[in-house]
Amino acid sequence: MAEMKRLLPEEDIVYFGDTGRVPYGGRSKETIIKYAREDIAFLRTFDLKAVVIACGTVSTTAMDVLVEEHTIPVLGVVAPSAHAAARATRNGRIGLIGTQASIRSGMYERSIALEHPTATVLKRACPLFVPLVESGRIHPGDIVIETVVSEYLQPMKDAGVDTLVLGCTHYPLLEEVIADFMGPNVTLINSGAEGAAAVAALLQRENALACRATPGACRYFVSDRVEDFTQIASLFLRQDVTETVTQIDITNAAALL
Amino acid sequence: MAEMKRLLPEEDIVYFGDTGRVPYGGRSKETIIKYAREDIAFLRTFDLKAVVIACGTVSTTAMDVLVEEHTIPVLGVVAPSAHAAARATRNGRIGLIGTQASIRSGMYERSIALEHPTATVLKRACPLFVPLVESGRIHPGDIVIETVVSEYLQPMKDAGVDTLVLGCTHYPLLEEVIADFMGPNVTLINSGAEGAAAVAALLQRENALACRATPGACRYFVSDRVEDFTQIASLFLRQDVTETVTQIDITNAAALL
Repeated sequence: MAEMKRLLPEEDIVYFGDTGRVPYGGRSKETIIKYAREDIAFLRTFDLKAVVIACGTVSTTAMDVLVEEHTIPVLGVVAPSAHAAARATRNGRIGLIGTQASIRSGMYERSIALEHPTATVLKRACPLFVPLVESGRIHPGDIVIETVVSEYLQPMKDAGVDTLVLGCTHYPLLEEVIADFMGPNVTLINSGAEGAAAVAALLQRENALACRATPGACRYFVSDRVEDFTQIASLFLRQDVTETVTQIDITNAAALL
Repeated sequence: MAEMKRLLPEEDIVYFGDTGRVPYGGRSKETIIKYAREDIAFLRTFDLKAVVIACGTVSTTAMDVLVEEHTIPVLGVVAPSAHAAARATRNGRIGLIGTQASIRSGMYERSIALEHPTATVLKRACPLFVPLVESGRIHPGDIVIETVVSEYLQPMKDAGVDTLVLGCTHYPLLEEVIADFMGPNVTLINSGAEGAAAVAALLQRENALACRATPGACRYFVSDRVEDFTQIASLFLRQDVTETVTQIDITNAAALL
């Protein structure tokens, strides 16, 4: 969302955050697909140019199904990040971190292999990163996040990866701690930024960019209490949410369709 | 569940774990009540003597509503733990840790005040404990769990509490680390064990105990993939789940009623 607003300030954006059912990363494929279908069904009640899956877990685990079920473009973060990683690596050794579901899916490796067939992908699920980020433990010098980062990433560092895909949209908040640990020769790929750039490229290609001199409107919807969302949202957006946020019942929203 | 099986081995138990929507601890009161209603509606499709809320968050946040909506006894972990804490304290200073929702509810303090009106309750939400326990970081010597325990509990130690309520049913897995930090003069109250003892007392009082020479049957239901549950369940039950586990659709299970 932060990257979309930065790259495409004139677009209207409808945001849905499934705060009543997150985190998705430890759930099964079947449950992730079920929830993602309901989420998109709600978004489709608006008139949209495209749907952006700004979540690594849904992008790796449910994209095939979602793309097939919709006639408008459905974009995720995997293909753009895989493309960026394949271009960035010099030694062909790419690290990949994500949620348990994302790592289990194998989707990133398949996507990287399409662009760089000889690349080796070293992967690791990092289930503690999401709760640590949401607790605000993102700063260098914090022994807790530094210990966990070191445990998860030491094997990749030892294997000499020169590129590391941050395959979950929470992880860019750990960019400083991860960069400090991996060192200056490792390129970090921000899946949120790559995903947003792909959306901008698509709209440009399709001649569908909003053209006006004023900023677009953002509407926010969540499935749990609005107050809890606005607190955490400012951490991710790096600015306060000043627009109205509305709570919806995501199960019934989907049932209406 | 572990404590129930230990205290009441002859009872048949129907277990439901809402694995597709956990953790509840960071959600709003409204969402917790909605989910808990659906969970109990599913359990009520069986012929039950009582419903046991083996979850600190639901016990603190939804009990009033749930008790009122059902004609069979609905028992939680708050009243039994409050009773145990009020009896255990010598200096009247009681510590309380739980999820964000549990701490926000104020339910433990009200319950303790009924039994020990002059007691002071120092409380603290510990949102990282559940993900750390579920990642298996429960052992003394682990710098991550020890740092987090020390941050959350130092103010209570400084204040001289002599009793600490582990107000979430995940926390007894941290008993060793917490006991090491708090020292031998602090009594830890295990809300799961206290809750199970209250169920046993109720069944005895009502003359409703199962009387037979063979162990009762346990049936397990979950709302996400069975395989992921059986892995984590053995950590909590301290034994493998050998019975059949069945996945259900909790939203539709409730809609049927």
